[in-house]
Amino acid sequence: MNFSNRILDMDYSPIRKLAPYAKEAENKGVKVYHLNIGQPDVKTPDTFFQGVTDFKEEIIKYSDSQGIDKLIESFIQSLADSNIYFDKDELMITHGGSEAIQFAIMATCDPGDEVISPEPFYSNYSSFAKVAGAHIVPVETKIENDFHLPSKEEIEAKITDRTRCILISNPCNPTGTVYSYEELKMLGEIAKEHDLFIISDEVYRQFIFDNVPYNSCMHLTDILDRIILVDSISKHYSACGARIGLVASKNKELMHQILKLCQARLCVSTIEQYAASNLINTMNSYITEVKMQYKKRRDIMYNGLSSIPNVICSKPKGAFYMLAKLPVDDAETFAKWLLTDFSYNGATVMFAPGSGFYATEGLGKNEARFSYCTNVEDIQNSIVILEKALEEYCAK
Amino acid sequence: MNFSNRILDMDYSPIRKLAPYAKEAENKGVKVYHLNIGQPDVKTPDTFFQGVTDFKEEIIKYSDSQGIDKLIESFIQSLADSNIYFDKDELMITHGGSEAIQFAIMATCDPGDEVISPEPFYSNYSSFAKVAGAHIVPVETKIENDFHLPSKEEIEAKITDRTRCILISNPCNPTGTVYSYEELKMLGEIAKEHDLFIISDEVYRQFIFDNVPYNSCMHLTDILDRIILVDSISKHYSACGARIGLVASKNKELMHQILKLCQARLCVSTIEQYAASNLINTMNSYITEVKMQYKKRRDIMYNGLSSIPNVICSKPKGAFYMLAKLPVDDAETFAKWLLTDFSYNGATVMFAPGSGFYATEGLGKNEARFSYCTNVEDIQNSIVILEKALEEYCAK
Repeated sequence: MNFSNRILDMDYSPIRKLAPYAKEAENKGVKVYHLNIGQPDVKTPDTFFQGVTDFKEEIIKYSDSQGIDKLIESFIQSLADSNIYFDKDELMITHGGSEAIQFAIMATCDPGDEVISPEPFYSNYSSFAKVAGAHIVPVETKIENDFHLPSKEEIEAKITDRTRCILISNPCNPTGTVYSYEELKMLGEIAKEHDLFIISDEVYRQFIFDNVPYNSCMHLTDILDRIILVDSISKHYSACGARIGLVASKNKELMHQILKLCQARLCVSTIEQYAASNLINTMNSYITEVKMQYKKRRDIMYNGLSSIPNVICSKPKGAFYMLAKLPVDDAETFAKWLLTDFSYNGATVMFAPGSGFYATEGLGKNEARFSYCTNVEDIQNSIVILEKALEEYCAK
Repeated sequence: MNFSNRILDMDYSPIRKLAPYAKEAENKGVKVYHLNIGQPDVKTPDTFFQGVTDFKEEIIKYSDSQGIDKLIESFIQSLADSNIYFDKDELMITHGGSEAIQFAIMATCDPGDEVISPEPFYSNYSSFAKVAGAHIVPVETKIENDFHLPSKEEIEAKITDRTRCILISNPCNPTGTVYSYEELKMLGEIAKEHDLFIISDEVYRQFIFDNVPYNSCMHLTDILDRIILVDSISKHYSACGARIGLVASKNKELMHQILKLCQARLCVSTIEQYAASNLINTMNSYITEVKMQYKKRRDIMYNGLSSIPNVICSKPKGAFYMLAKLPVDDAETFAKWLLTDFSYNGATVMFAPGSGFYATEGLGKNEARFSYCTNVEDIQNSIVILEKALEEYCAK
């Protein structure tokens, strides 16, 4: 019996590929600084745990397929603070932003269809597309202009009669790029002229630095029927393991179709939803302070990486990742070597090799994504280790 | 811009279709006995809530994509009690049995492929297949022989070069049928001779009555590489809203492929997993007592329905549903009328119309699925109401 072509075509997570080597290093007593995944070290707010404690039902029942009212309303309220307005039938709760993106692609793409996405992109976008039998058609962005979007013509050149949507993350994982209003407006024009949807993954929207304004695709008010918003509590509230996100659109008919997908899997975890609905009571200062922390860490990491000879770094304006070009042929080989063959003062560093974020073969080979959602001391130590490691590796 | 053909082809949940009419009835002050959905009224065990309370992490982090060790181990231990043995890399945690079935179909079927399933079947099987671009090819079972499987030849007649797997629920939703070892052995022979997988949804396996033995597809020891087991805590522990299930197979390569799907959606809800891993400490008496309750309710409902003139009822040996043939042309019309136009002593009954459980147009039109996971008094009242209703409806 055969496995499906679909599953054979999918990749394992490139971000987790090196995990066994990290484990081996740790077993040998080497401390590994994990700059490879976006798992914040910030405490989940007490309001979440209070929501768990407040759950007093005696039966863990099925809840409504589209999500519990309290949580839908809390998201609506929170988005309204950013001038994004949804009715109750325009927003559904999902198992994390992951399920939201999967649903958006399922609802708009058939097998053989195409999703345009700027690369480098979050690796799992490719998985979500493949699960739906579709695939990502990448549009190249470059470190030289901080991974901002290329021209309208360059994007349009990628459109075929199988293109169904454009998928972006903004702020961007893995680059930390925050798109300008003009960039989003351009995407909106493309979507309108070529009859496409835009799936806008804004799960890092609360973490934007340097007074750069937050522009959402939901601010493109003339084409809201084409915009599908994805959001989540994972990053904003350091609740990655809760798996609570949302998919939303002013296109009521689209949302009504997506309801079928919600009904098929019955509902989202009950306790997590109740807990998440209490996050609305978190002090604004929580997000403000976390944002300040990330900014500080961003500065330290950027200054540190940029000071290493021959490392070219892009300074991100949002999220908590940065991409750097390293003076190596193959960042994945270097990443593995860091774990298997190197340590400095009993420690080493793990990052996510850049090629895992590109669809185009050969791109990103010497790039590395670093997460800075870890503490300052770890970041400072990591920079020192990286510099020593590159010195030794390049001399080989 | 267009929606996908996939989503347009999917149906809304037939089980929830009549919900607005029920709401209207309730708003008018009519008590509605909900025999339409499988939401148990049994309390979730204290061990689950203790597991929630015991969760002391300060950060709700991502957990392993395949599930947390504790929970995997607890499922392995629990299945071993039924002589079903898995290694740790052969069992993965899913968001409910729903995700397990979806993953199993995704891993074995490409768009255009076929899944053979006895009808009547759990309506969402059709949704899971359609999400994957595949579809259910039904094999008819009949109330006259309690929905047991037809002959091997009848099933084989449905096989084409696009058939990839057989999907069964055992005990069966919606019929309550418990397949014999011979029936499973026959399916096993078909799977072997035609190179198919068998997806065996056994989420009701703990609720089997009348000393009927529990036979699992996992007892077909010569073809374990073809068997994909689906299980869940939803029904056994009345924790439907937790969304904790499992997909498992001795086919290690298959499970390794399924890992890609787990990685794509990152992980299952953390707190629910920790809570579920404590269910292993639930006294065996919990399941025993719940099973006794369901048996008692089954007897009352079966005796009651069978005593109504012209109602033909199948006596289920497992799960908590029964299918009955009603003396009406269209059970859906009758179900709606029950909600919009009928009440007896201020109450009415809601059931799930049988046609929603069939793929073949026209079948099940006069059938009704009744859930008996509600209390004895409600069941008794429901029988009285149904008898009165049928009297009035048939006299029209």
